[in-house]
Amino acid sequence: MFRCLEKITFVFMKTISIFGTGNVAFHMIKAISLLKNYKILQVYGRSEQKHYDFSNEFNFDLKTTSDLNEIQPADFYLVCIKDDAIEEFIEKIARPNIICMHTSGSLPLLDKNCKNAVFYPLQTFSKSSELNYAEIPFCIEATEEDVFTKVEELALAISDSVFSISTEQRRSLHVSAVFVCNFVNHLYSLGEEICKEKGVPFEILKPLIKETASKVQQISPTEAQTGPAKRNDQNTIQSHLRQLSGKDQKNVYQLLTNSILNTYGY
Amino acid sequence: MFRCLEKITFVFMKTISIFGTGNVAFHMIKAISLLKNYKILQVYGRSEQKHYDFSNEFNFDLKTTSDLNEIQPADFYLVCIKDDAIEEFIEKIARPNIICMHTSGSLPLLDKNCKNAVFYPLQTFSKSSELNYAEIPFCIEATEEDVFTKVEELALAISDSVFSISTEQRRSLHVSAVFVCNFVNHLYSLGEEICKEKGVPFEILKPLIKETASKVQQISPTEAQTGPAKRNDQNTIQSHLRQLSGKDQKNVYQLLTNSILNTYGY
Repeated sequence: MFRCLEKITFVFMKTISIFGTGNVAFHMIKAISLLKNYKILQVYGRSEQKHYDFSNEFNFDLKTTSDLNEIQPADFYLVCIKDDAIEEFIEKIARPNIICMHTSGSLPLLDKNCKNAVFYPLQTFSKSSELNYAEIPFCIEATEEDVFTKVEELALAISDSVFSISTEQRRSLHVSAVFVCNFVNHLYSLGEEICKEKGVPFEILKPLIKETASKVQQISPTEAQTGPAKRNDQNTIQSHLRQLSGKDQKNVYQLLTNSILNTYGY
Repeated sequence: MFRCLEKITFVFMKTISIFGTGNVAFHMIKAISLLKNYKILQVYGRSEQKHYDFSNEFNFDLKTTSDLNEIQPADFYLVCIKDDAIEEFIEKIARPNIICMHTSGSLPLLDKNCKNAVFYPLQTFSKSSELNYAEIPFCIEATEEDVFTKVEELALAISDSVFSISTEQRRSLHVSAVFVCNFVNHLYSLGEEICKEKGVPFEILKPLIKETASKVQQISPTEAQTGPAKRNDQNTIQSHLRQLSGKDQKNVYQLLTNSILNTYGY
């Protein structure tokens, strides 16, 4: 008789400590907690209270500290704090054998007394959103090959979408992200404002918002462009401008219309 | 013994003729062809060739004509042609007993020699997109009550989302739609342009685009706002402005940043 023997593999668990208690830290903790071969060692945050709130959001044990002296060595330190504090912060925690990664879109690959790397997840994070981590693009950067490999392994454990991106390219992505996320969201706000002024529910526009984002998943935005400016339909443009009440609404309408007109050679 | 008797209901099929061969007409034909109690009688379009292409897109028989003299009476005439041609066109086809509906966001409820109505589907239509018609908001308008009821019945047969919207409200929705669809799509284009300049694949931004649209399905855009302008992070703003090459890119960045700063009281 045959007997199936279980194949036993010894895997060395890699350890990660995460620094920060904001939205990026929240989702990185959630994503990494799902991984088989990685273990979250500690989570650091300045404020005790924020830590307490933060711990309560997870249904697994989180070792938190607000004391940098309590930080133990780990394979990775993942720094998810505000851009302008990152450099000084990594200087404090850097140790030669630890891979210290920041998650900023605009900071360069640092040159501190550690294994320097960048681990930039290109997504908009809020605690209330359920995200599919496998779809988040990770832009990674490291000079040393073995560091790069280890960071890549971690990123690939989380996501199917991992890119080797230079500092300069990452900066371009960061600016582009402002256009396609922050500015886009502001246009949603202006749309909502216009609706409110006439007592129309913003609800009615939601399927359109979804479909507009969905279209460019398949075809290029240049191909997907529609509307009065694309057709240089001056009657509609002028009538829209007359309807708009706020100065911001008018200015944004005029500038984006002109920019579309320029794009299509009018 | 009991015997189940089939309940036989006599339903009068209502007839609809559709005018136009553009994207709106295409999707209205598709949506109406799925309805049990409505029958598409004829489809009118000026160009024979376009008609031929158009017929080939459907896997059911479509009676097409490019001769207005061949148009037969029907319960509904649904006019899906360009805004600036609608009024004159409806004047030609209007008959007192027929409900003539236009699909324009900006034209008023007309006053022609027919049962006047508006049937405005608020969505961006392209032939290549598979749309869930049940989710498309229909904004309807009619003065006479019985006309309104019939138009509402038709809209509810297609969609779960039907609204009674006045001309003024519809015009606001139309302007808002320019902000949340046409302008948003142009920001996607600018994002793509910036990526191309640095050889970064636009692909990387697609999950962000999806999530940004997805967030405002649940929370208000004002709550969802993030980014350097929301935080009045002038370092990042100035560094972004230095990176941008095109005049349009810079102008759009500056104006939308200022508009966000205004919104959040900086």
